[in-house]
Amino acid sequence: MRSLKYYIACTVDGFIAHKDSSVEGFIYEGEHVADYLKSFDSFDTVLMGRKTYEFGLNLGVTNPYPTMRQYVFSRTMETSPDENVTLVSEKIVEFVKELKNEDGKDIYLCGGGKLATTLFADNLIDEIILKINPVLFGSGIPLFSDVINQTNLELTNSKIYNNGIVSLHYQVKN
Amino acid sequence: MRSLKYYIACTVDGFIAHKDSSVEGFIYEGEHVADYLKSFDSFDTVLMGRKTYEFGLNLGVTNPYPTMRQYVFSRTMETSPDENVTLVSEKIVEFVKELKNEDGKDIYLCGGGKLATTLFADNLIDEIILKINPVLFGSGIPLFSDVINQTNLELTNSKIYNNGIVSLHYQVKN
Repeated sequence: MRSLKYYIACTVDGFIAHKDSSVEGFIYEGEHVADYLKSFDSFDTVLMGRKTYEFGLNLGVTNPYPTMRQYVFSRTMETSPDENVTLVSEKIVEFVKELKNEDGKDIYLCGGGKLATTLFADNLIDEIILKINPVLFGSGIPLFSDVINQTNLELTNSKIYNNGIVSLHYQVKN
Repeated sequence: MRSLKYYIACTVDGFIAHKDSSVEGFIYEGEHVADYLKSFDSFDTVLMGRKTYEFGLNLGVTNPYPTMRQYVFSRTMETSPDENVTLVSEKIVEFVKELKNEDGKDIYLCGGGKLATTLFADNLIDEIILKINPVLFGSGIPLFSDVINQTNLELTNSKIYNNGIVSLHYQVKN
């Protein structure tokens, strides 16, 4: 079975975005960006919550990860705005289980907190990779939008960048 | 002026304790504990919120930091349970400002999230030192209990321990 990795930028106080899904305050220049883009080679599939996808959409980006099979999960969207992005409206957990059972590269979960909570609750997230930005938002969307069970992690990799970004790779211990 | 350092253990999802102030799931053995105890040499004063102090008190610890001048902040406690711990009931911000202006070693803020929020809002916290434990609590008491302003930090030091603890030192950029 291939791995599902929740790979996300966050603040020191644990927010992945402001309340309106914007991300002003994160650092988008530096070596960590090159490492992030390089990580795309390991993924052939990406999962996005509706708000995460719509944040890009509002900036005119309809096809955010063109090298991957893209899925947006929503019960309220009626159609996908782009032929490269497949809308999944129901049986989210079953759908992702089937995806994981397929052959292929790893699966990238790029957010948001609500989709992560749903998938985590069903033990479908194998790794959490955080890019901790040197900023406090003070409020916003947390890593997980709702309560999850206490879960041990194993730190498998880490990197400290000159610009203050800290990258931490954790394996979820189910 | 001496520095006030918010030095605290937290989870990967940003909680400093469970909702009931307990901390089951944090790691209390290893090199990071030695480093933590060694850091006591740099402090002569410690600040505690009521719930943080009472968590120890409920375990029978009335004098948790005997090498430091100890202050517990509460509007509801009537008297301090220990002669080594001074209760501060009012004008918290003014009190801490005066403490910072005194000569001496640095000041240790050991929690909790509510006291940290009050002091942070008045720009009294100079450094945040996190010991990120390899665990998700899923719910609990966050680093700051209430909304604070977005604030940039500077990563000044970091250490990765073999047991998966990640220690990050940040300077608050006011």
